[in-house]
Amino acid sequence: MEYEVSKRMSDIKGSAIREIFKYAQDPEVISLAGGNPAPELFPNEELAQIAYELLMKQPVLSLQYGVTEGYTPLREAVKERIKRVENIGGTNDELIIVSGGQQCIDLATKVLVNEGDVVIVEEPSFIGAMNAFRSFGARLVGVPMDSDGMNIEALEKAIASNSNVKVIYTIPTFQNPMGVTMSLEKRKAVYEIAKKNNLIIIEDNPYGELTFDGTKLPTIKSMDTEGIVVYSGSFSKILAPGLRIGFMCADKSIVQKAVVAKQVSDVHTPMITQLLAYEYLKRYDIDSLIVKMRANYAHKCKTMLDAMEKYFPKDITYTQPGGGLFIWCDLMHGIDTLAISKKAIENKVVYVPGNTFMVDMNKTCSALRLNYSTMSDEKITEGIRRLGVLFNEIV
Amino acid sequence: MEYEVSKRMSDIKGSAIREIFKYAQDPEVISLAGGNPAPELFPNEELAQIAYELLMKQPVLSLQYGVTEGYTPLREAVKERIKRVENIGGTNDELIIVSGGQQCIDLATKVLVNEGDVVIVEEPSFIGAMNAFRSFGARLVGVPMDSDGMNIEALEKAIASNSNVKVIYTIPTFQNPMGVTMSLEKRKAVYEIAKKNNLIIIEDNPYGELTFDGTKLPTIKSMDTEGIVVYSGSFSKILAPGLRIGFMCADKSIVQKAVVAKQVSDVHTPMITQLLAYEYLKRYDIDSLIVKMRANYAHKCKTMLDAMEKYFPKDITYTQPGGGLFIWCDLMHGIDTLAISKKAIENKVVYVPGNTFMVDMNKTCSALRLNYSTMSDEKITEGIRRLGVLFNEIV
Repeated sequence: MEYEVSKRMSDIKGSAIREIFKYAQDPEVISLAGGNPAPELFPNEELAQIAYELLMKQPVLSLQYGVTEGYTPLREAVKERIKRVENIGGTNDELIIVSGGQQCIDLATKVLVNEGDVVIVEEPSFIGAMNAFRSFGARLVGVPMDSDGMNIEALEKAIASNSNVKVIYTIPTFQNPMGVTMSLEKRKAVYEIAKKNNLIIIEDNPYGELTFDGTKLPTIKSMDTEGIVVYSGSFSKILAPGLRIGFMCADKSIVQKAVVAKQVSDVHTPMITQLLAYEYLKRYDIDSLIVKMRANYAHKCKTMLDAMEKYFPKDITYTQPGGGLFIWCDLMHGIDTLAISKKAIENKVVYVPGNTFMVDMNKTCSALRLNYSTMSDEKITEGIRRLGVLFNEIV
Repeated sequence: MEYEVSKRMSDIKGSAIREIFKYAQDPEVISLAGGNPAPELFPNEELAQIAYELLMKQPVLSLQYGVTEGYTPLREAVKERIKRVENIGGTNDELIIVSGGQQCIDLATKVLVNEGDVVIVEEPSFIGAMNAFRSFGARLVGVPMDSDGMNIEALEKAIASNSNVKVIYTIPTFQNPMGVTMSLEKRKAVYEIAKKNNLIIIEDNPYGELTFDGTKLPTIKSMDTEGIVVYSGSFSKILAPGLRIGFMCADKSIVQKAVVAKQVSDVHTPMITQLLAYEYLKRYDIDSLIVKMRANYAHKCKTMLDAMEKYFPKDITYTQPGGGLFIWCDLMHGIDTLAISKKAIENKVVYVPGNTFMVDMNKTCSALRLNYSTMSDEKITEGIRRLGVLFNEIV
């Protein structure tokens, strides 16, 4: 039978990254394309013990329906933690547990954005968030990125020249895909601009704790006196992504609506995954796990940057992240990194072409995203060497 | 700050059932309001063992990101099972794992229904599904229920008198909230009507396996030669709801779009809950677990019906379910069961007033839903006795 796809979904393609992953299955292929955290740091033995105890001793709690807002002790533990670590959580804020950071963006969009409304995004930005906005019929307007976050003049222009702007979406810290961090001045400016224009900021912060040297800038949410920042947090990068545990912290009235949206979306996040996160936080020191992750990623990032210095043509530019998982590399000269990605696959190395992260994915893009968190040192170096050979032929 | 809730979400209230649950927290209150499966049958020891082994031996599989479609061995196991048990799955069908049956309805709606489109629902119907439709801006049109499923004349009239009808939503077997089952003739008729009018059927079947005497009617999906039936299945009622494992089986082209919608909603269903379901299916005989559930629910249903026969006024009517979790009871005489529910709470017994399940929840409803799956025999009988006292005063 012929059926018609809804308008909101008719133009969305699945993430191109997923297509690239097919090639990454080949064990000979070195994948610098993913965004997966390093699996060697998953605290699997601790989680195994917790899961066994919970299912044996608390079967009803672990297996029966739970409340949509999330397991109360986990909510309290996360509130306590983000207050301590990020100074987040005012008297008018509330927090719900969601099924990974992605669901926070999905629910916030569903609750706040009408079809045809404009969402302003950093350009490049996270494809998963952009597709979530698209999937509710939002119109994306991109704001170009500087090395210290979005260009403020361009942001003001984007707001002035578009009607029905509702949301500014930003990943201020160790941005995906660029790895850059928004300066304190720009954080303040973005907040003031949102306030002045009656806009909501969705602040997505999955990588914030993965700071290499331990330094951190204040989150935009920590400046939020007006209840205009929806903060998306996640345990995917600091505990384990397969658990799908994230949270939304926002003004009570927004969270209340998000709870209704979550109720009709998946009723609640699974109990066992919430309990695993809660008991891990209670029994172990997640901060020292994060310290290990920071050291691991700092080392891997340096390994990649050293190899890039050695093997890449000299006029290629790239970011020098202070944390997170990604390096953004620009080949310039109008080179099409999507076309080259096919040659890279032939050479058994994959990256994500930059056009993936753009509002208009059909425009040629000379940049690409590299990930250093999943591969071994040897594979990072060899992957960059293979790319270097290819880029030296082209640039 | 003042912000505006999206149009699609502005009129939706959280499920009234959740409000009632607050009273059900009181240990003196007998709750006949829930829809929870009986926790004494959760195979928690088996799941504890599986969880421990998986997290110890397969940490990367259990904790790393997975694919949006779901864990492939689980998908294959579920395909095999629904082929065997329900004769579902043609060559053009595909299956994805979702986070509970609720997410199947959510994704199907997102993919198929535009704002302003009509979704036809049985009236009364499941509040969670109706709110999912509402949350995408669908307009609900109710079709009254007979004792053998939706009234076919009324269905045809509803289709003829509304434009932009896209979907017929039905729970053909042991319907929520009525507990009635659609006859084979009506299943065929609904399918033919959908086919003739180019409509999609969403067939929601969470209770189908909970048949008291083991007899079953063919699912509508098993008749689906045209690829017009989206089948929503769930492990919530046959394994454990807290796992949030359900599935969508539908025409490939619909599933493909649903995968994109799921990717932007929650990336994928957690790995550990998928693995628990898969390993349970592989290592144990879920069919014999279901046989135990059937006997348990058949006994509890009979206990409730016996008590209703003994304590309720004689001119009250109620359904006699052949399976599932619910009895629908009509006090008639224009009685408002919402108003009486407050008196019931004073008498320490709760049910769900019928208006909750109606398209227009503000209309007075003389019916109510009773659940027998969670309480002990003694509490079922005492709860019905308390209601009987109340109803005898009123009717």
